Amino acid sequence: MRRPIKVTVWNEYRHERKNEKVKEIYPNGMHAVIAEFLNKEDGINAGTATLDEPEHGLTQEVLDSTDVLIWWGHTAHNEVSDEAVERVYKRVLDGMGLIILHSGHFSKIFKKLMGTTCNLKWRAVGEKERIWVVEPGHPIAEGLGEYFEIPHEEMYGERFDIPAPDTLVFISWFAGGEVFRSGCCYHRGAGKIFYFRPGHETYPIYYKSEVQKVIINAVKWAAPANGPEVQFGHVPEPLESIR
Amino acid sequence: MRRPIKVTVWNEYRHERKNEKVKEIYPNGMHAVIAEFLNKEDGINAGTATLDEPEHGLTQEVLDSTDVLIWWGHTAHNEVSDEAVERVYKRVLDGMGLIILHSGHFSKIFKKLMGTTCNLKWRAVGEKERIWVVEPGHPIAEGLGEYFEIPHEEMYGERFDIPAPDTLVFISWFAGGEVFRSGCCYHRGAGKIFYFRPGHETYPIYYKSEVQKVIINAVKWAAPANGPEVQFGHVPEPLESIR
Amino acid sequence: MRRPIKVTVWNEYRHERKNEKVKEIYPNGMHAVIAEFLNKEDGINAGTATLDEPEHGLTQEVLDSTDVLIWWGHTAHNEVSDEAVERVYKRVLDGMGLIILHSGHFSKIFKKLMGTTCNLKWRAVGEKERIWVVEPGHPIAEGLGEYFEIPHEEMYGERFDIPAPDTLVFISWFAGGEVFRSGCCYHRGAGKIFYFRPGHETYPIYYKSEVQKVIINAVKWAAPANGPEVQFGHVPEPLESIR
Amino acid sequence: MRRPIKVTVWNEYRHERKNEKVKEIYPNGMHAVIAEFLNKEDGINAGTATLDEPEHGLTQEVLDSTDVLIWWGHTAHNEVSDEAVERVYKRVLDGMGLIILHSGHFSKIFKKLMGTTCNLKWRAVGEKERIWVVEPGHPIAEGLGEYFEIPHEEMYGERFDIPAPDTLVFISWFAGGEVFRSGCCYHRGAGKIFYFRPGHETYPIYYKSEVQKVIINAVKWAAPANGPEVQFGHVPEPLESIR
Repeated sequence: MRRPIKVTVWNEYRHERKNEKVKEIYPNGMHAVIAEFLNKEDGINAGTATLDEPEHGLTQEVLDSTDVLIWWGHTAHNEVSDEAVERVYKRVLDGMGLIILHSGHFSKIFKKLMGTTCNLKWRAVGEKERIWVVEPGHPIAEGLGEYFEIPHEEMYGERFDIPAPDTLVFISWFAGGEVFRSGCCYHRGAGKIFYFRPGHETYPIYYKSEVQKVIINAVKWAAPANGPEVQFGHVPEPLESIR
Repeated sequence: MRRPIKVTVWNEYRHERKNEKVKEIYPNGMHAVIAEFLNKEDGINAGTATLDEPEHGLTQEVLDSTDVLIWWGHTAHNEVSDEAVERVYKRVLDGMGLIILHSGHFSKIFKKLMGTTCNLKWRAVGEKERIWVVEPGHPIAEGLGEYFEIPHEEMYGERFDIPAPDTLVFISWFAGGEVFRSGCCYHRGAGKIFYFRPGHETYPIYYKSEVQKVIINAVKWAAPANGPEVQFGHVPEPLESIR
Repeated sequence: MRRPIKVTVWNEYRHERKNEKVKEIYPNGMHAVIAEFLNKEDGINAGTATLDEPEHGLTQEVLDSTDVLIWWGHTAHNEVSDEAVERVYKRVLDGMGLIILHSGHFSKIFKKLMGTTCNLKWRAVGEKERIWVVEPGHPIAEGLGEYFEIPHEEMYGERFDIPAPDTLVFISWFAGGEVFRSGCCYHRGAGKIFYFRPGHETYPIYYKSEVQKVIINAVKWAAPANGPEVQFGHVPEPLESIR
Repeated sequence: MRRPIKVTVWNEYRHERKNEKVKEIYPNGMHAVIAEFLNKEDGINAGTATLDEPEHGLTQEVLDSTDVLIWWGHTAHNEVSDEAVERVYKRVLDGMGLIILHSGHFSKIFKKLMGTTCNLKWRAVGEKERIWVVEPGHPIAEGLGEYFEIPHEEMYGERFDIPAPDTLVFISWFAGGEVFRSGCCYHRGAGKIFYFRPGHETYPIYYKSEVQKVIINAVKWAAPANGPEVQFGHVPEPLESIR
């Protein structure tokens, strides 16, 4: 039997402590809500880590035992130490899955892995978002309908300055006239990365069943593949003909 | 100096002869309008062909001298002979560019080259379309703004049953709540294919400057690359070591 | 608990009955060997079907209960009825996985789904093949080393006339000087397709542990995602503003 | 008429001054040879820059007037200042083309744009390389045969730790048993990037006609597209319905 997928839900956890509206929605932080619904799923074992813990809760030991890291950050990207970013980066290339949520698009780790600015357009008036599935055979679309709606969300609009995803799973429609590549899959090194757009802190996004389903699916998709251990560098001359 | 790109604009040319509204917009057919703006461009030399000509105007001779074929069809896809489709198919794989416009998504040739149904959602109430550029470095985006609008268009919505494009250049937003992958690039064989969504016959779409610019750009992009002549089949055993 | 993945291993099953050398390697056919190692795997339940059964063993009932179809054909592609091909085609677009082995590159079903000729170079002198993993984070690479070797194989060489795969997992090196894209993943409709190169009938390829591992991995990857049921065609006008 | 493409050929230019063997092949440096064959081409205007010039010859002024930057580095990647790397990075995302040659795979700029280690296997015994065209319709394959050979080269082998290219144009075969993705196209921001493998300093690689043809083709492909000027950040609420 396969052992459970070990997830660490990382959250900046600042808005929830400083903003009354956000605190009301997520009294224990978004990470707590996300870990809770993940832990209801067979085969997933989720813990949490936050910015203000020592080493941001992202010690080498924690990362080494993490199969999939989920990341939410917004207001304090620059407070994440370069050392922690480097540790996460190496673990991703070594096979750990990474799920970047919403405003995490501007995190140091996502920008470093994408190699681009990851910039975008935004507008926070609580407009309607419709998230369309464009790759219905992808495991991250399991159990979804053709689209799902979020009645009030912050808008993110194209041009989203990312590399074209290896697989584009979702495209968002916004009432105000914009579109967005909302579900983007990447292979980087031996790791898999999924960017998922929804999640503005002032709306109860992570209580929504479709959003939870997507994150659960993404955890399963992003779990390490246990592929070859790659050797880099000098390789010896073949001693005899390999023909 | 490079010789001009030889374009053949193929049109079903039925709506324009039977429907008064369409006739008013395109008295000589859409193909005439498209060929006209192409011929104003340096380095492009455009002719036309239509369904009701002998062999649909797509004789082997015409195809052999065509660098890029543009295709508009809607009401009579099934009247296109399998022989003509096969000739076009072989020419595309041999290097001829192919630009499929709007309702051409359901043409025999596009379905054959894509290997999928190319089905989609549609609604014809003349709603607003906004076409967003998502790959600003692609040559088909040359000279465009971040988006352009078509005030009244037929809606095409996802799921669009196509292979994920090699490069996705445009995504459309529709007022009624849908999105669509509107500019899709493919390599097939030695040929390049571009699907471009706009062009419902009851609106003057092909008079619009941005639409014309996209088609001009696509012609240049899709022109044959003059790459290697590929040999298939049995290859002899190396007579001596190739090391 | 997830129900087992139902696999149907389809084989042309002609070489094994007509050619003594092949019969010796696969006395009950390649399909029997493949089904056998699949059935040793937890969560996989494999049956077989062959060309000379009624409807080639590919009745609607069989296909409807098949999650992943594996396909080996070579000498009798044209004897597969268009009706059977059409049934398989629809099931793939509807979500069934499809794994095409070796000379199945020239099967009707693969050519129809790819939209290209699927032609290639070949040479049958039993040279060495080395299959390199180029996407180590992909689930089809699970449990493999950086490469594996097949001491004697038929060579397949580029240009392989396929659409660029959505994900390229393996590249083969051949002693005689050729390379080949040997592990190619595609989404088509709601289905997933994997092309896997090895498997010439005169060598005991499907007894090789790495080859078996790849096929097992591919079955798991290609199993249906149970994503949205897609609706195509006309969609009604929104009765009220969706903003 | 289109103005010429302004190319800057950047070279580390150390091996040529320190190593007699390399000096003999490239007495004025590889950059001089590359610029020379580029300048013979209509529509290309090439200059050079080297590591030991002030600001490595990569001042803002030089970069601002460069359409395509070609990069060769090997022994002194770490001597390239972070400021210069940042200037190049911003220009690429802003539309400048970038062609990375051979050992430039390990340059700061390539690793930053790829988001991965860009590590690989290597062996320097002067074995034969065969470079196969796998996307014959791509403009970078113009004028080539199905493959070309380099009789003596340093081997680079997979796993090459890069993101899967947007388009894979070449795959190399090496006599010693390795394969390599040798021609890789990327869009990043508004810029286009091409990685091209050949070019070890101890062999006269850049005198070879096919290698020169590839670089000329890549310059034309990577030239800026003059697409939309992208605006990021806050966008205002639509004042009226956009429906």
